[in-house]
Amino acid sequence: MTILVEVTRGNLVESRHAGACVVVDTAGRVVFGLGDTAAAIYPRSAIKALLALPLVETGAADRLGLTDGELALACSSHSGEPIHTETAASMLAKAGRDVSCLECGTHWPMRDVAARALAAAGREANALHNNCSGKHAGFVCLACDQGQDPAGYIQPDHPTMRMVTAAVAETTGARLDDRNRATDGCSIPTYAIPLQSLALAFARFGTGMGFTPDRAKAAARLRAAVVANPMLVAGTGRFDTRLMTALGDRVFSKTGAEGVFCVALPELGLGIAVKCDDGAGRAAEVVTAALIARFLKPDNVEFSRLQQPELVNWNGITVGQIRAAAALAS
Amino acid sequence: MTILVEVTRGNLVESRHAGACVVVDTAGRVVFGLGDTAAAIYPRSAIKALLALPLVETGAADRLGLTDGELALACSSHSGEPIHTETAASMLAKAGRDVSCLECGTHWPMRDVAARALAAAGREANALHNNCSGKHAGFVCLACDQGQDPAGYIQPDHPTMRMVTAAVAETTGARLDDRNRATDGCSIPTYAIPLQSLALAFARFGTGMGFTPDRAKAAARLRAAVVANPMLVAGTGRFDTRLMTALGDRVFSKTGAEGVFCVALPELGLGIAVKCDDGAGRAAEVVTAALIARFLKPDNVEFSRLQQPELVNWNGITVGQIRAAAALAS
Repeated sequence: MTILVEVTRGNLVESRHAGACVVVDTAGRVVFGLGDTAAAIYPRSAIKALLALPLVETGAADRLGLTDGELALACSSHSGEPIHTETAASMLAKAGRDVSCLECGTHWPMRDVAARALAAAGREANALHNNCSGKHAGFVCLACDQGQDPAGYIQPDHPTMRMVTAAVAETTGARLDDRNRATDGCSIPTYAIPLQSLALAFARFGTGMGFTPDRAKAAARLRAAVVANPMLVAGTGRFDTRLMTALGDRVFSKTGAEGVFCVALPELGLGIAVKCDDGAGRAAEVVTAALIARFLKPDNVEFSRLQQPELVNWNGITVGQIRAAAALAS
Repeated sequence: MTILVEVTRGNLVESRHAGACVVVDTAGRVVFGLGDTAAAIYPRSAIKALLALPLVETGAADRLGLTDGELALACSSHSGEPIHTETAASMLAKAGRDVSCLECGTHWPMRDVAARALAAAGREANALHNNCSGKHAGFVCLACDQGQDPAGYIQPDHPTMRMVTAAVAETTGARLDDRNRATDGCSIPTYAIPLQSLALAFARFGTGMGFTPDRAKAAARLRAAVVANPMLVAGTGRFDTRLMTALGDRVFSKTGAEGVFCVALPELGLGIAVKCDDGAGRAAEVVTAALIARFLKPDNVEFSRLQQPELVNWNGITVGQIRAAAALAS
């Protein structure tokens, strides 16, 4: 195991996170790697932008009149704030559907402030608050545009899910079948894919190289949509939102559950994939920031705060920090 | 690093947790150990029962008329449910004080249901909702009983904190000074202590062996208080609460932040200490349950649910499980 991140308290390292990370170019060459970069991992929500490609490249998004904000939400793991639920509802309405079509399940908003505001208003959570509701609304839009019955769209063999899965297989070059398939938190399939293949897909996603012209155009549109709406891809205070607010179109990043990140650095033609062995999001964020710092070398105050987060206690006292370990530090 | 816990999804291990754990007897002999059991770790909230010893052994608890429920709360990391905040307020009232005396800082209830109920009632969180408010109320009770001004009780050199720190030094045999001191989430000092020394302290705490008669009596009273009030030491659905509800006085367990557990098995004269390297509570729970299973061999349905928790997604589908790795499985 390769230690990538250390969490300090006082003078000592209190906790440490192992994992793997890899940076590849559009030809799939490994530019930098630590840990087992060939291991297959579940990318979870980190590849939502790949899952959204069919929505755009089929022309469905244009035919339904989806806005850039709605496309950003299709790529999101959102915090369940009002802007997120309203955008998801708007997508469903454009498909002639509503919340009853969503098959992602219900949870209270990920952002505690939003959850308490909902409770204070005497309301209950519904499937629009699920952090995956934008992705699911995108699937419903695609199904309706393609003349498919959206019911059961979360199943691996539903025609909509087949289109979406094909996009992942083609962009990563990985074989996806029932041997490497598991079920995600929102009930769609998630397939174990080599870390290097995920990084390659994002090198391609950031440049369009290796894609058909329609897919390259769709990727560029999704990147632009997210970068123009960083609040819609995550939420208040979240890493992806802060990162893309700070660096704009120089970076496209997306977190996934269990310590995963996928990133494109378009101007460098590089893709990044990160998996923390223990599934810790706090560590995956610091690994991602360290790799962006190493390759993109951004000069930005807000970005520097993402690189080495301070741990602050309930009285506002700084008690430690989260930092890249020696192997990863530039 | 020693892998102690695996998290599966579908057919694969999605995440893995490394760490150290040790079981010692009352003479400090290592009965079982994995990983670096001599490493000094911050025990955080796992030693709240040791911090509560002076409150009982000085006679302060009796003079103030503290109930068993209040003593259990003094040992707790609670979920901020009404029973917890009411009990903390009652402790402070017995010392002639109120919430304004607490120096732990404020956070919303750890239990999301309780946080939303508070918001729905139009109320705000205060320091009573802090998961450490029972421990802090105990410090205030001790200070007032001893004729000390409680103000500043969180500082290492406050007379109350000196009494509390001495109890930890004496029970663990560890030297505690500014070289191994850091600040906890609730602003009291936390000292890095070898894992074996923490396990020894809990072997003693569970039996009274190696303690003065007054301290042995105080330990027995605190154990009985917690076992009689498992809801007060944690909260609805929490590991410590479920464990002690299931197994009663056969076990005393307490979680600490960043993947720590300290446990006493009184009938076996054993103490256990666990630290997950990455700080994951989900893993520390499974390690703790595996060690209890190995040594106590309980035959209990509710306990068996704690041993190998299922991962259930937002639609109620079982997608994986958390299990002890080979090195730890009985």
